Amino acid sequence: MNLLLLEDGDFIAADRVRLSGRRLTHLNDVHRAENGDTLRVGRLGGQMGRGQLLQLDATSAELQVAFDQPPPAKLPITLLLALPRPKMLKRVLQSVSAMGVPRLVLLNSYRVEKSFWQTPFLEPEAIREQLILGLEQARDTVLPEVIIEKRFKPFVEDRLPQLAAGTLGLTGHPGDYPACPRAVQQSVTLAIGPEGGWIPYEVDKLAEAGLKPVQLGERILRVETAVTALLARLF
Amino acid sequence: MNLLLLEDGDFIAADRVRLSGRRLTHLNDVHRAENGDTLRVGRLGGQMGRGQLLQLDATSAELQVAFDQPPPAKLPITLLLALPRPKMLKRVLQSVSAMGVPRLVLLNSYRVEKSFWQTPFLEPEAIREQLILGLEQARDTVLPEVIIEKRFKPFVEDRLPQLAAGTLGLTGHPGDYPACPRAVQQSVTLAIGPEGGWIPYEVDKLAEAGLKPVQLGERILRVETAVTALLARLF
Repeated sequence: MNLLLLEDGDFIAADRVRLSGRRLTHLNDVHRAENGDTLRVGRLGGQMGRGQLLQLDATSAELQVAFDQPPPAKLPITLLLALPRPKMLKRVLQSVSAMGVPRLVLLNSYRVEKSFWQTPFLEPEAIREQLILGLEQARDTVLPEVIIEKRFKPFVEDRLPQLAAGTLGLTGHPGDYPACPRAVQQSVTLAIGPEGGWIPYEVDKLAEAGLKPVQLGERILRVETAVTALLARLF
Repeated sequence: MNLLLLEDGDFIAADRVRLSGRRLTHLNDVHRAENGDTLRVGRLGGQMGRGQLLQLDATSAELQVAFDQPPPAKLPITLLLALPRPKMLKRVLQSVSAMGVPRLVLLNSYRVEKSFWQTPFLEPEAIREQLILGLEQARDTVLPEVIIEKRFKPFVEDRLPQLAAGTLGLTGHPGDYPACPRAVQQSVTLAIGPEGGWIPYEVDKLAEAGLKPVQLGERILRVETAVTALLARLF
């Protein structure tokens, strides 16, 4: 937790917050914070700044806070991701949020196991929890938008062309394709497949919607690693 | 497991292997392989090729194998990593192996908790297990070398200058430093700090040994994410 992220409900005055629960435990057990300590704080969806601990014990913490800095810029990207297995989903949500992706579409694919759509980690509260962890890690305050698309074809045919219009459209896919470009200066729409990859039909449909296949070399990377590697290369 | 990795002890003839244990379970439960199926195989430290399942049941599998392809090239890098916490260490070892890092130095740092050095995940067999998982993921056969350096100062003063000689020496560190270079055409020695970062003394000592600080932006990334992002950007 490199940033103490504050929500509206935490505020007991315009410049004062009271915390309990997970963040309090973290302050006590991990930060080993003490009265008078100054911490980096951010207001969810708003600015970042500093907070001074006025009071801290096992049941609550109070801080005086001031905000004076904008959060870091997001990456100019919409990321489409074939729904990963639940354990990977949690980590990917954190990574995506930490790296500054503003919009994530979780998409079905032939190789996504049907059971993955049943996971409780897809509940809005569970998604939000992982995104918050990513913001706290990276020091950002703005939650990414997460869109869930359980049907590949209608999404790719009807909505993706509009979503990708005016952007550099790319599908990460191993094979005999051009290498993923570096340090691009425009907005990107990037699709990353499931373990085992997109099937050829899906690669074709994504290309029809404007997302051309690019590759990252002959090594097959886990989804989480591929997401990070592609983002680091593109921007 | 995108590659079935074979070791000397698996061979019952020059072109024939018998498997049990983890890989057998994986063939049965994950691949749901059947007699006659053809799988990608690799010989640990050697070539890659194809194997055909001659026999498969709950107790063993036999394959006829042929090797005709070299493993993918490694990245021209020596990676120095402040020892991460045990859970992260496991994942980092897999990533590093999957991404093709040929040599990893696990190093002490002021912000590495002493208890991290006690983890059973640092036993040679435990390290090897994670590296093997990375090779199976990425389709590679050559284990990275892992060097453990429990003392920062003697390593950085006495051994690092020689290790880094003739390479581009870099320390990944947030701050007012040049951006990490992209698509470099030379060998690299890269140091990545612990959660919380290197302390200034360590940044100075690494710089004296030839590793100049570079940054990846204002977002603070988890160690595993930083490793992947820096490698993807450098190569």
